Amino acid sequence: MAENNTRTAYTVESLLAVTVEVFNERGYDGTSMEDLSRAAGISKSSIYHHVRGKEELLRLAVGRALDSLFGILEEPAAVTGPPVDRLEHVVLRTTEVLLAELPYVTLLLRVRGNTTTELWALERRRDFDHQVAELVRAAVAAGELRSDVEPRLATRLLFGMINSVVEWYRPGAKAADGVAEAVVHLAFDGLRAR
Amino acid sequence: MAENNTRTAYTVESLLAVTVEVFNERGYDGTSMEDLSRAAGISKSSIYHHVRGKEELLRLAVGRALDSLFGILEEPAAVTGPPVDRLEHVVLRTTEVLLAELPYVTLLLRVRGNTTTELWALERRRDFDHQVAELVRAAVAAGELRSDVEPRLATRLLFGMINSVVEWYRPGAKAADGVAEAVVHLAFDGLRAR
Repeated sequence: MAENNTRTAYTVESLLAVTVEVFNERGYDGTSMEDLSRAAGISKSSIYHHVRGKEELLRLAVGRALDSLFGILEEPAAVTGPPVDRLEHVVLRTTEVLLAELPYVTLLLRVRGNTTTELWALERRRDFDHQVAELVRAAVAAGELRSDVEPRLATRLLFGMINSVVEWYRPGAKAADGVAEAVVHLAFDGLRAR
Repeated sequence: MAENNTRTAYTVESLLAVTVEVFNERGYDGTSMEDLSRAAGISKSSIYHHVRGKEELLRLAVGRALDSLFGILEEPAAVTGPPVDRLEHVVLRTTEVLLAELPYVTLLLRVRGNTTTELWALERRRDFDHQVAELVRAAVAAGELRSDVEPRLATRLLFGMINSVVEWYRPGAKAADGVAEAVVHLAFDGLRAR
């Protein structure tokens, strides 16, 4: 019984890994259950044994990215200390999660909003962004961040920089070293030598 | 004769404005000449009177964005002075061009590479990025920029931040004020108060 559960869990996990690659390549709308069946090398009925369909696979995939991202906001370094240090931790860890969960976060960032699951994902993304924007506001109020950049705009530019990494980052590539640290350096202290 | 030329120029210009909106909404691949004819309110044969087809419209539209971007690199402030000042000018102006030519730059950033024109546009984008990366390298070599962020990575993060603006910027919106200046502040001096 335990053995069977393990095997089932493994199957959903590996099915998800294949699914997220296909979604990212063909787009969610452009992917059929037939495409998923072919890419996974298992029959459609085997897939339906685990999930109700394409939308549930999307929910599981973007849910994985969202859980990792929201997990950051509960890490000790994100909840205690001066707002600027908490924000710095969140920016570093958000970039690290993006790198570690690259296909899942890529899929999350491409969600369009055509289905209930996509609307739910967009809503949760907005919620995450708002919580980070609140941290930016708190750090500005504490005099830790410059006040001549509007907090909402600062948050947008921060996420713009972080999220753009999915466009070029390939695991194992040389250029990949120190990406999260570079994001933190640039965001908080800028490129100018001091 | 002069009047006729003027009218023709106006027509291509306004056709292009409609075209770029349709391309951005439906995607270049997903747009037919029928779609363009409907959106522009003119017959397909009228469109063919001005251009050979869809791909020429794409070339004109992304060409407009590229010409504006490459124009920046020839501005006096981009060619004289310390590298860091030249880079700062290029970052400011690139953001300003993106805001001023929003639909055209948005289209350029979404080019995929399925046609000769798209491959040409990607090649010119890479050329622009390389020229900016050279400027970053020169500024690092001059000791004006921090040396602990690899120049290619710094360039990617810079463009990531700048280009992300197309995702949310809407002309006339309140949040749009001071975007280019905010990008420069964040990129060169960071968000931290001093």
